[in-house]
Parts: sequence; C-alpha cells; structure tokens
Amino acid sequence: MSLKALRTHFTGEINPEADNGQTVTLSGWAHEIRDLGGITFLVLRDRTGRAQVTILKKKVDPELLETVKRMSRESVITVTGTIKAEPKAPNGYELMPESITVVTVAESPLPMDTTGKVDAELDTRLDNRFMDLRREEQTAVFVIRDTVQAAIRDFFRENKFVETTTSKIVAAATEGGTDLFPISYFDREAFLNQSPQLFKQMLMSAGLDRVYEIGPIFRAEEHDTRKHLNEATSIDIEMSFADHEDVMELLENMIVYIYEQVVEKCQKSLAVLEKELQIPKLPFNKYTYEQVLDIINNEIPEIEDKMQFGDDIGTQAEHLFGEYVFNKTGESHYFIIDWPTETKPFYAMPYEDRPEISKSFDMMHRMMELSSGAQRIHQYDLLVERIEAKGLNPDGFDFYLKPFRFGMPPHAGFGVGAERLIMTMLELDNIREAVLFPRDRKRLSP
Amino acid sequence: MSLKALRTHFTGEINPEADNGQTVTLSGWAHEIRDLGGITFLVLRDRTGRAQVTILKKKVDPELLETVKRMSRESVITVTGTIKAEPKAPNGYELMPESITVVTVAESPLPMDTTGKVDAELDTRLDNRFMDLRREEQTAVFVIRDTVQAAIRDFFRENKFVETTTSKIVAAATEGGTDLFPISYFDREAFLNQSPQLFKQMLMSAGLDRVYEIGPIFRAEEHDTRKHLNEATSIDIEMSFADHEDVMELLENMIVYIYEQVVEKCQKSLAVLEKELQIPKLPFNKYTYEQVLDIINNEIPEIEDKMQFGDDIGTQAEHLFGEYVFNKTGESHYFIIDWPTETKPFYAMPYEDRPEISKSFDMMHRMMELSSGAQRIHQYDLLVERIEAKGLNPDGFDFYLKPFRFGMPPHAGFGVGAERLIMTMLELDNIREAVLFPRDRKRLSP
Repeated sequence: MSLKALRTHFTGEINPEADNGQTVTLSGWAHEIRDLGGITFLVLRDRTGRAQVTILKKKVDPELLETVKRMSRESVITVTGTIKAEPKAPNGYELMPESITVVTVAESPLPMDTTGKVDAELDTRLDNRFMDLRREEQTAVFVIRDTVQAAIRDFFRENKFVETTTSKIVAAATEGGTDLFPISYFDREAFLNQSPQLFKQMLMSAGLDRVYEIGPIFRAEEHDTRKHLNEATSIDIEMSFADHEDVMELLENMIVYIYEQVVEKCQKSLAVLEKELQIPKLPFNKYTYEQVLDIINNEIPEIEDKMQFGDDIGTQAEHLFGEYVFNKTGESHYFIIDWPTETKPFYAMPYEDRPEISKSFDMMHRMMELSSGAQRIHQYDLLVERIEAKGLNPDGFDFYLKPFRFGMPPHAGFGVGAERLIMTMLELDNIREAVLFPRDRKRLSP
Repeated sequence: MSLKALRTHFTGEINPEADNGQTVTLSGWAHEIRDLGGITFLVLRDRTGRAQVTILKKKVDPELLETVKRMSRESVITVTGTIKAEPKAPNGYELMPESITVVTVAESPLPMDTTGKVDAELDTRLDNRFMDLRREEQTAVFVIRDTVQAAIRDFFRENKFVETTTSKIVAAATEGGTDLFPISYFDREAFLNQSPQLFKQMLMSAGLDRVYEIGPIFRAEEHDTRKHLNEATSIDIEMSFADHEDVMELLENMIVYIYEQVVEKCQKSLAVLEKELQIPKLPFNKYTYEQVLDIINNEIPEIEDKMQFGDDIGTQAEHLFGEYVFNKTGESHYFIIDWPTETKPFYAMPYEDRPEISKSFDMMHRMMELSSGAQRIHQYDLLVERIEAKGLNPDGFDFYLKPFRFGMPPHAGFGVGAERLIMTMLELDNIREAVLFPRDRKRLSP
C-alpha cells in the first residue's frame, strides 16, 4: 500500500514533446474550472506550476463530467490522463483525462482569492497563510529561498566551513541587555538568543576554525516596520586566521554565488515574479564611514540631518546614499567600512594606529543594510577594556571571556539577515513576505 | 591587508610526497612540545589533524629556539617551513621551520587536558567546552555532524523537498499543553515550539508538497538523563500524496544515505573515534506493535513489566527488544509500526478498518528511539474528533484546523532527533557529546 499512485509527475516535470501521448497521473489543487459548454477546462495546480485538463463533453464518461461539475475550487484532485502537446496551453501541454478523483473537498467560499485577480491586504494574507502560499508568486518566493539557502551551504562547504548549531536559550545577553525575550527556564530566568556571536567566537578558540550557521535569532524590538521581524533567520559565519578584509571578500563572493545559483536554477520562479536578476559585480564598492559622512554632508542636499563623526547613519541618509551609489556605479550592493569604534559592539577590533576606528563593515543593499561584520578582538585584555568602555560588567561574560585566555586565534566574521537578502533580491514590499509564518509585535499566529 | 598569509594549508591538506620540499605556512595550537636536547618536537594542531615541527638545535636561528622554549602549550602559533616526507611522523611528514610566531599566548595551567591522557568528568568538559572541543575525538564528532547534516539536505533536495523555516515562538502548544517553556512576548504569553508539526502540516495545505527543516525544538522535560536534552535539533519532514509506508521508505533510505556519506567522507574522523560504521541493510525490519508485545511477553523472560495492548514500551523492554532484534538480524535499526491510536498524537491516521490502530511508526536504533512518524489525518471532521478524544479543545487549534477545510491533501511525515542520530551512529555515552553547547535541567552556560 502506498499513495505513490496518486502522482507519477509534477506538472512542471512534463516535457510536452517527449511525453506526448504518455499516460500520467497528476495531483494538486483545482485552480480554475471554466465550463464553456461543449468543453470544460480544469486547471490543476501543484508546487511546480499548472496543467490544463481538457474535458470534451462528448468524449468523456458522464460520471467524470459530473465530478467536474460538482467540484469546488481549491479542492484536492487527482487526474489520470494522456499528455497532448498543445503550444497554446500553459506549459505547452494539455491533459486528456481518463479519470478524475476529488481527494479532499474544499469548502466555499474560500477565505481569500488564490488566482491573483483580487488583491488582499497583507494581514488577511498572513492570517490565511496556507491559502496565500498557494498563490504562485508566494510559492516562487519560497522555492527561491530554498535555493538561496542551499547555495549558501554549498558555498561554505566549498570554503571548508563546518556547519554548527548553537543554543537559542541563553543565560546572558549577547551584547548586554536590551531587546531580549525572557523565558522561564525551569526555576530560572533565561533569554532567547539575539545572535550566535559569542558562541561562534568561542568556537574559534575551540579550533573549529571556520563555522557557519543558518538559524533563528530573536529580538524584542518594539518597532513594527516593513523591514523588521522579531524572529528572523541569521546567516552567521566566523573564520580564524582571517581579518575583516578576508571576510568581506568571502561575503561578496557569497552574494554573487547566491545570485548566480538563483539565476541558474530558478528561472521559472523568477518569471512568475517578473524579475530579472542582475548579478552584482565583484569587487563590491567600498566607502569608508568618513567618506560616507562627507558625501552625505556635501553632495546630497536632500538629506536633512547632516552628520558628525560618531553619528549613526539615519534611515533617510542610508536610503539616499544607496541611491547615490546606485546612480554612480549601477550597483545595488556596497560596503561601508571603518566605522567609529564607539558605534560598533565591544568585540569589533580597533585599528592599531587609530583606535577610534574599527575594522568593521556593513554590507548594504540599496534598499537597506544586509550584513554587519568585523575583525574581532582576540586579545583578552583589550576585550575586557572594551566591554568596560561600553559600560558592561565583564563578570557577566565569564563564560565568553575564558576562551580568550587559553589560545584564541585572530578571527573575523559576519551575520547576514536571510529575509533581508530575499527581500532585496526579489524587491518584496514587506519582509514578512519572505517568511512562512512571520512573528512581529502583533502577530503570534498562525 | 589580510591575515591569509597566516596559513597556506591545513595540516591535513598536505600530501607528503607531492608537497615534499615545498614551503608552507601552518597555523594552529601548540599541542605538544617535547625537548629532547639536541632536537625539539613541536606538534601543531588544527581542525584537520596535526603536524610535527622538527627543530634541530644546531640548525635553527637561536631566536626561533628561544621562542619555542618560552612557548606555553595551547598557544596559537604560526609556523613557516619546508615539508619533509617522514613516514614515522603523524600524517607522514615533518615541517622543518624557518620561522615560528606565537600569535596568542595561552595561560598556564590549562583548565583541562586536551591530549586525551587525562580523563575529565563530563561536567568539567562542558564547563570548558572551548577546551574540550580541541580534543580530536570531540572535533571528529562535529566534523561528522556537519557531514550528516549536509547528507540529509542533499538527500531531501534530491527527492524534491523544499527547505523551510518555521517559527520557534508560538501561541499554542503543538500537542496540547505540557512540557513547554513560556516566553514573555511583549505583553503576551507565548511558548517555545516543541515541534514544527502543525506548521509543516499547514504547509501541505499550502501546496509546498514536500518540506523539510533541520531546526531547534524545545521541551521543558524535567528529567535529566543520558539521552534527553531540553533544546535539541529536529530533522522534520512532511510529504503530500504519501502515506506512512512511503515515508518509512524515505526514512530508511535517508539513514542509509547518511551512513554511506559518513563512511565515504569522514574516514579520518571515524579513525580518530575508532569506529567502523556498518551501513544498515535495506529494507529495515518491521515489527507491528502487537508483534513486539507478543515477543516481550513470551520470548524475552528478562523483561520484568509485561505489557498489555495500549501500554507504552518501557525503557527496559525497549532496550531488551533492541538486543533481541540485533541478535536475530544483525541490524541495529528497525521499525515498530501500527501503534495503538490512543498512544499516538491526535494527528496520527487510524486504519479505516481497524481504527484502534494507527498508520504510525517509530524508527528504532538498538540504543533508543530515533524517529516517530505517521500518515496524518487530512479529513477535517476526523481530526476534530481526534482532538476532542484526546481531551483537547479544538478552539485552541483554530489556526491549524482552518487549512484542513480548504483543500488538504493526504500526507505523511516524520521527525528524527539529530543528536540521537549522531549519538547512536558514533556510540557516544551521553547525548550532550553530540551538542556544542548543551542545555539541560541544570545547564544554561556556556
């Protein structure tokens, strides 16, 4: 016994020429049913696309016709029939049915439209995510996300990185204090981890040398914007015997590899989304923080808040600077490097000859920041000094500091927001469209 | 500027014959320093193994000799020198140094031994995990774990599965109530997810068709045993148009593929652990729950607690039955199928002709249970009935039940404990050895 008989092919696997005349069984959803009198078109949809089932009233069993007549849209169906090459049909073939079975009936009315003919509000869509994901544009996003994650893993494997899994339940805050979700861990207080940062650094002392992790991070940030999530996926790497320059090179190569893989493997999904990806050019342009400051203050009059050394780059400035770079270079991706030490976390390595500047970088996309990274401090004394300079108590970081006393190699790393990567690649309006079941200030369900 | 000059090769990448006479730079830890008078052996260790640096007092710069004399064990060092094939040295070569640099000094005494000569208690090891992971047996475990995860992903990609990421913060318990860690989610109560079960089922209604996820699960179980973790990694899959037989076949093929990949790619790590893996034979043996009952009650007199239909299989019985199967078949892996419906979660599909039995299975290893799975109920009415029969309120499962009303395909799936998979494969004494930073009743740090 097996349900395998319910499907011999996905709709997207059929080759109209090679499979012409073959008998196949398809399973999926009744996407559309159009009764034109003598002929009925039933469109069956699965993850890979659609197949047109052509029912000629005079030629089929009356019972089969009856089944189609009674069928509600979005019911789960199985169709066995013969492939007929037909250039005018979707995917170049139609299916001449021998049998049609309704496996599960869908109730009517549907909670939302799946044909793309009616626009629904994002909230309605997310409330009915199971239905929203049936829209081919949404399916395409997650088929692409799968390819992106596979590309990242292949890239790091190829570069001799080891995939690691670190704890999400932690006793202490990564960067000391704010924006944490507290957990009751038996009779103790614990937190959801904001970042695997401290773990991946400890793993450098452990000698794993090059590690990466694609996993959840949790931030209790109050703001509810188009580009923030309270639970997100972070692509995190750390590399020993490497500095910020080395990992920037790794990062830009990773981005290009991802784009190349998506272009190679996801043409169909890109077509559904009406996107043509431009592969970013290597190397990415680099601007020092001070150059950015200078350009913002002197070359972009539209920016309202002028900046001083040590200021963060505001949203408007970031946006207009991204446009400036794009107009100048034709590229969406670029680095802002050499940030003031005070603007970066305690573990960012200051330059030896100019300690107010750190060996740090942000990797930007025109739309938003995608990644932050740095060479890290590997000297115990300097690290303690920096923790104290941030007003934090080194005692709270005991478990983290100890590995620095017994042989910590120089190392560097970065984190990339997976959803932001997808969002910028596919120019999605809202980051929630890049997550299956998003979590934000208001949303805990489904 | 780049730190790439610190390493031209990993120690394990050098081919004694091909690279003989070549100049290389290695970086790693000072594993051992043996001063024999006229000759000093310095062993440099990295993730891939060890290299012997041979220092002939009369031939090297006195400054270099001084550096080695002052060097503390486990300091991070960089050595540039010439490869000399030497069958008696580890990995078949020695390095004749031109320069040796101490990059980071390790304090003495070390918090624990890394040579494997002194056995440390597990708690001491976990408290000093960064140091414990430097032991080559522990490095080997995580190099193998990396290969296992890569093999799983390759296997599912090959079988047309899409990798998904589901939320770890949830509003409701997956299986209704117990063993949950509560979170303060802004002003609401939420929980850490015990399993992606409900999500992956919703994704079947969404039409993603075949999904897998390797991600964290959280269980607030009080017991503190060798084989339980409070935060673990689950390998979860769900497949549409498939039943329990189909996914059992997938599961046994996955296990065999993983073993094959580890044998192919991890010979060195297996040798360090002194393990020779036996590839499980296909198909795995299957015993129905009732057969197991019968054997336990009649053929294994050592089992103290005899069983009645509906009883769970206790730890002692499970263990002795595993031995029984192994002695009879020579195989460690087997299935127990057709469990009483009442012993399984509400979503397990009952047999049509014998509803007290469900289309469910556990996949066992001689040492312990590795996986649970089933065909799932896809009929809304039956599912509501089963939720109620478990004493749960269907209203709490609204978000989950809705997808069943609008076109849910038949589907089946399973979850596998990643750490248990590693633990049984490598015959580790304690599941904590398969996790970088384990979390249990008592341990929240590092």
